[in-house]
Amino acid sequence: MENVVVYYFPFKGLGEGIRMLLTYGGQKFDDHRVPKEQWPDFKPKTPFGQMPVLEVNGKKMSQTLAICRYLGRKYGIAGENPEEAFEIDQNMDFFTDIRVKASTVMLEQDPAVKQRIKDDLEKNYYPVALKKLDEIIGNNNGHIANGKLSWGDFVIAGAYDAIKNLLLQMPELDEKYPNIKKLKENVLSLPKVKEYVATSAPKTEM
Amino acid sequence: MENVVVYYFPFKGLGEGIRMLLTYGGQKFDDHRVPKEQWPDFKPKTPFGQMPVLEVNGKKMSQTLAICRYLGRKYGIAGENPEEAFEIDQNMDFFTDIRVKASTVMLEQDPAVKQRIKDDLEKNYYPVALKKLDEIIGNNNGHIANGKLSWGDFVIAGAYDAIKNLLLQMPELDEKYPNIKKLKENVLSLPKVKEYVATSAPKTEM
Repeated sequence: MENVVVYYFPFKGLGEGIRMLLTYGGQKFDDHRVPKEQWPDFKPKTPFGQMPVLEVNGKKMSQTLAICRYLGRKYGIAGENPEEAFEIDQNMDFFTDIRVKASTVMLEQDPAVKQRIKDDLEKNYYPVALKKLDEIIGNNNGHIANGKLSWGDFVIAGAYDAIKNLLLQMPELDEKYPNIKKLKENVLSLPKVKEYVATSAPKTEM
Repeated sequence: MENVVVYYFPFKGLGEGIRMLLTYGGQKFDDHRVPKEQWPDFKPKTPFGQMPVLEVNGKKMSQTLAICRYLGRKYGIAGENPEEAFEIDQNMDFFTDIRVKASTVMLEQDPAVKQRIKDDLEKNYYPVALKKLDEIIGNNNGHIANGKLSWGDFVIAGAYDAIKNLLLQMPELDEKYPNIKKLKENVLSLPKVKEYVATSAPKTEM
């Protein structure tokens, strides 16, 4: 049996997709939650100064999408051929575009600039991009690609609350984009994942 | 034979990795360069309102990394096992982190904010991130991962001039980070690519 550790902050965010994927794959893991105060000490011990980190038998792996694609291959949910694998990759890169755009608001320190970026995204970007994402999921039976479960679904489902409450600050996300919400529910209702969420997942708003 | 079209602006940027990968794979393609003036009309015809787009037998594919990973698999340069595939993905996501950070300067319209973001990146981010990228390539024999050629190398080599001259505005990139430059030269000296660069590649600074 592999010795597996997940290092991430004590909330869901980008770590939760990894935690849920490992759970789905029946892989036991040490869920090492690093409090904010310990992060400066831990940061230099990560491959790229970032979390999440997945450690497998002592080897540290970084980058959320790369890790989740790797686990997806292991568990048989990374597409059955190169075309299906591509569809997942393409749509997940689009999802990441949205997530990264949204995070620019959070990262900006100047209140006036922050507000200006936020207003611009809310007016010009989110209505188009989130509608498109919602349509993609609607056309794929509540999944990000190929009409079926893939590793990409776990990333989106895991990050859903952080995106809704922290990045977008959009409590109405559930109602406005019902397919994205449906994708989250599809992942969270998978039997092993359901049990993990009930017992072990971070009870946080993000 | 497949009918293949690349749609991108008439410069290298994110499209060049795809053009060079197709060339490397011996795949003939229609190199459709869309001038800036035609972009507003063409934009709605792309899957995500973005270029590059790769069209294969009428099917349009989007997202640079997803496309290049797909082509890499086709041409046998996407890793020989899941661990090698992961290493490419991880390091390319790190490269993309840098590229996206650098592009925030270009995208910002307010001159004072633009300068502040640029100064901050130059002081606090690039020295660490570019050094790390240079080290990774140095440790991998002039490649982005696994000590050998992969699809990731093509993305970096293709975007090199745009990053140096447009995003980083760092003419001293060549001298400061010789391994990144070496990677570019490794790709550009592959026989078929060398011929393509001499005869067909955009003769542009980006």
